Amino acid sequence: MSKGDQTRQRIVAQAAGLFNRRGYDGASMSELMEATGLEKGGIYRHFSSKEELAAEAFDYAWQHALDVRMRNLDSVANKVDALKLFITNFVELHPPIPGGCPLLNTAIDADDGNLVLRQRARKALRGWHKGLAQLVTDGIRRKEMKRGTDPQQMATAIISSLEGALMMSRLEGNKKALCEVKSYLETYLDSQVRGAE
Amino acid sequence: MSKGDQTRQRIVAQAAGLFNRRGYDGASMSELMEATGLEKGGIYRHFSSKEELAAEAFDYAWQHALDVRMRNLDSVANKVDALKLFITNFVELHPPIPGGCPLLNTAIDADDGNLVLRQRARKALRGWHKGLAQLVTDGIRRKEMKRGTDPQQMATAIISSLEGALMMSRLEGNKKALCEVKSYLETYLDSQVRGAE
Repeated sequence: MSKGDQTRQRIVAQAAGLFNRRGYDGASMSELMEATGLEKGGIYRHFSSKEELAAEAFDYAWQHALDVRMRNLDSVANKVDALKLFITNFVELHPPIPGGCPLLNTAIDADDGNLVLRQRARKALRGWHKGLAQLVTDGIRRKEMKRGTDPQQMATAIISSLEGALMMSRLEGNKKALCEVKSYLETYLDSQVRGAE
Repeated sequence: MSKGDQTRQRIVAQAAGLFNRRGYDGASMSELMEATGLEKGGIYRHFSSKEELAAEAFDYAWQHALDVRMRNLDSVANKVDALKLFITNFVELHPPIPGGCPLLNTAIDADDGNLVLRQRARKALRGWHKGLAQLVTDGIRRKEMKRGTDPQQMATAIISSLEGALMMSRLEGNKKALCEVKSYLETYLDSQVRGAE
């Protein structure tokens, strides 16, 4: 990696937390300068626009969030248990970039606004959804999940309830909503989804 | 209502859609002037700050969203069916203020930011959650819902999954996620929550 690439990567990493906490419009140039320790010219030597920097920062934050959520899933053979580990990871593990879920933040921030950010968030959601739906498909094939389970609907139910509960928990400043949804989803998976084997 | 109060109310109504679409930082003074048809001085004759206007606009937008979601619930005797009507209202009815759910938008916007807006959003969430939990409590008392149903958890599960699905649907520009969650919640309510009567 060239020195320029290294600097660019460092700016992305340092800006990611600011954009995730403050949003696209909320992250001011002076805060970006403070977060990166660079002058405006130093930042824009590496990025053509605030939009380009924000898009790279989103991809960086999302990759880190996803890595934490999907941690060790491959090591769990039973796919119901893999889904339950995913839920535990989401609720229990400390997110690497401050400010909550980059996907939720950017989706809300960009749904009436920035098109480039919206496209990045959409790509992130689709990849994540596809990964969880594939877990369900595998679970059905392996007879660990009931045949009538709908992989698309199951992935949507898990993502939507966890993201909604994260919004509630961050607003209240406690984990109550996340813990309630974790318990609810676990009961649902064990009683309605898990197959007889 | 005095002429001043009428003007104040009109400014709130006109600013509500802008704040809901663009967020607190995203709503610029020039856009506020355009939305209200007033100069800066004309707006700030009625509000001490942008924060005060945004807080009033949130309350206005939230009250309208809640009215739509809770529509006709009193006319449904069975509380499982009342919850199902609430879910249908959330998914099917046209929201009165553009830009998505004011609570979700403001919660995400303010969770690392504006304290006044965060407090308004928190109050809105608590009132809404309490109302749905009360429906479940009533349903259990009336033996329309199973005794083991947890009113707090049920309210959290419904709110979180609908709000999360709204985020997904708005990001994708279609209702797929909302319809999937509606179907999932309906099946859950009928199979796991509805009592024998």
